[in-house]
Amino acid sequence: MDQKTAKTRIDAVRQQCKQSKVQAMIVMSVENVRYLSGFTGHDSWLLILPDKAILITDSRYTEQARGECVGCKVFERKGALTAAAADFIVGAKGVRAVAIEDSSAISMLGVVKKAIKRKIVPVRGFVEKLRAIKTEDEIRAIEKASRIAWLALRQTLPLLKAGMSEAELCAALEFNMKMLGAVPGFDTIICFGPNASRNHHQPGQRKLKTNDTILIDFGCKYDGYICDITRCFVFGKPTPYYRKVYDAVAAAQQTAIDMIKPGVCLADVDAACRKVLADAKVAVYGHGTGHGLGLLVHEDPRIAGTAKKEFFEAGQIITVEPGSYVSGKIGVRLEDDVLVTEKGHRVISRNKGLCFEPAEMPVLKNK
Amino acid sequence: MDQKTAKTRIDAVRQQCKQSKVQAMIVMSVENVRYLSGFTGHDSWLLILPDKAILITDSRYTEQARGECVGCKVFERKGALTAAAADFIVGAKGVRAVAIEDSSAISMLGVVKKAIKRKIVPVRGFVEKLRAIKTEDEIRAIEKASRIAWLALRQTLPLLKAGMSEAELCAALEFNMKMLGAVPGFDTIICFGPNASRNHHQPGQRKLKTNDTILIDFGCKYDGYICDITRCFVFGKPTPYYRKVYDAVAAAQQTAIDMIKPGVCLADVDAACRKVLADAKVAVYGHGTGHGLGLLVHEDPRIAGTAKKEFFEAGQIITVEPGSYVSGKIGVRLEDDVLVTEKGHRVISRNKGLCFEPAEMPVLKNK
Repeated sequence: MDQKTAKTRIDAVRQQCKQSKVQAMIVMSVENVRYLSGFTGHDSWLLILPDKAILITDSRYTEQARGECVGCKVFERKGALTAAAADFIVGAKGVRAVAIEDSSAISMLGVVKKAIKRKIVPVRGFVEKLRAIKTEDEIRAIEKASRIAWLALRQTLPLLKAGMSEAELCAALEFNMKMLGAVPGFDTIICFGPNASRNHHQPGQRKLKTNDTILIDFGCKYDGYICDITRCFVFGKPTPYYRKVYDAVAAAQQTAIDMIKPGVCLADVDAACRKVLADAKVAVYGHGTGHGLGLLVHEDPRIAGTAKKEFFEAGQIITVEPGSYVSGKIGVRLEDDVLVTEKGHRVISRNKGLCFEPAEMPVLKNK
Repeated sequence: MDQKTAKTRIDAVRQQCKQSKVQAMIVMSVENVRYLSGFTGHDSWLLILPDKAILITDSRYTEQARGECVGCKVFERKGALTAAAADFIVGAKGVRAVAIEDSSAISMLGVVKKAIKRKIVPVRGFVEKLRAIKTEDEIRAIEKASRIAWLALRQTLPLLKAGMSEAELCAALEFNMKMLGAVPGFDTIICFGPNASRNHHQPGQRKLKTNDTILIDFGCKYDGYICDITRCFVFGKPTPYYRKVYDAVAAAQQTAIDMIKPGVCLADVDAACRKVLADAKVAVYGHGTGHGLGLLVHEDPRIAGTAKKEFFEAGQIITVEPGSYVSGKIGVRLEDDVLVTEKGHRVISRNKGLCFEPAEMPVLKNK
């Protein structure tokens, strides 16, 4: 992050503070602190005052913070976070009310109030709102994360053989991500056979058998930013039923992606996506159709039936991930990451020459 | 977890609810939900009513929850979590006030209040208090986690060679953990040379050189439970200064461990540990001396100067991890996990034949 970006972001928070009649904000969420300051550590608060911003950290992080922070000062506390924040607020002029994120713990309300002796105002989405619209650097980071994810998968698939466990495949995939300079963006989901009907299955000791299906929901974090991709494979010969479900999910996903452009209602995309599956007479997923991506794997907005008053905006990056599941029998999900552009959209997780295009069901051979 | 353990835990929560004059509790924290129900997924609440407990989940987790839950019913919601919780509370007799964890998000106060139309009472530590005292099963899980961590490290160290990066070493260590049936319990810290002065350094592209020092802060999660271990190595020939600091940290750690038994004040252990380093005239760490371990890597209690009214209790598992750091120059930390027993303590992270005993500074050779 450069000085100018940091200033723009912190000023945008100050603007929202002003509208909410607070003169300062204590930013506690790790991701929000990072977004506004560049600091990648934990247990530190960013205090935004009318004329300056201060990262309050401790001795474990001081050295790192001084190297990373942009657009704010770094203060190493000796006592409690609240005590340090209180000192700065007392020293600043005209701070009568202080905002904190309403995602902070309830206990913080009392703790901060007691130390700071100002009105404490929980506020919603001041930083998350900014985070939803990605800059060029953020888009590039997610594209790079996607590229590494695919490279890692391509290096891993040749290891597949009957008898290998989900956990072993997961270990190899995540190892390859790390050797390529990234880390897993979230707990990788790998399901062999009917385990795929468990949407958030954890890779276990289930061993791969010939003609098994494989679901891999994976993503890398690169430079703090996360991609989120799901593909399904057949390890041998697909059944006609699996092919039917796969094709329906692929059609549903493409239908949803094709609709994405600024101004389109998120709930409409959700409905259209589900309709393709219902029309094909296969099970319709119970989870959402997609979610924003960035410093966290789940961010605003959500593509869901409830998002009737939400509309796509240029700069958003969201997943599109319909699925079809029958408990204990079958599970198919296809997921890509889509950037909303001024004129429409660009799928940023289908890296040319690396990705498996969802339209074609990938069949892998036992070597 | 067996039926009896689940019942004991849920009854203990009910008892605390009673004392706080609330008739029900909504448990939201992932770890607390797991501790009380056995459910290992996310985005689900455990509702504790006077006569029953209900895990409220969604279609992504229903199958998994039905397999995992003990001592509670599983309910698959179609609408919002709050709406489902409200329905059960309205259906229960005599529930006038409902507890929620004060670690929940501030936004939950309004959301839950609106849906449930009962008095909402934020409470502190109802479940965390129980979690601080480990059962035999929990102790065994952490011991097993430690065993796997050491096995993984032993498999990894022979790969060490000059030119290898911190990130590559980390990738190999975490791969080995996974192949042994565990996962990393937290972001592994690997520091070559002076990077060790950054307490929470993330493994990066720094390459290993002959005569470098290496700090590895690592742990596995096994069956949900985490161990947390730090060791320091010399890759070649140690300097007299490094040896001096290492020996002082080892002495400080052992001094602290030797004091641990039920009834001893945590702040006293903290002070004694720091004094060994001060007396040896080496830098005294700025972080805490130790923390509880379990489903989370940082739990209650904390061994710190502020814990003047806290005393060890049998069944606690805590880390002891003094360190000595000079920014940009040197960093040494030694960390073990200690079970408080009825009569004293047992160090559970020094697995015989596998661990590096902290008393002897390990010197590794470039092969």
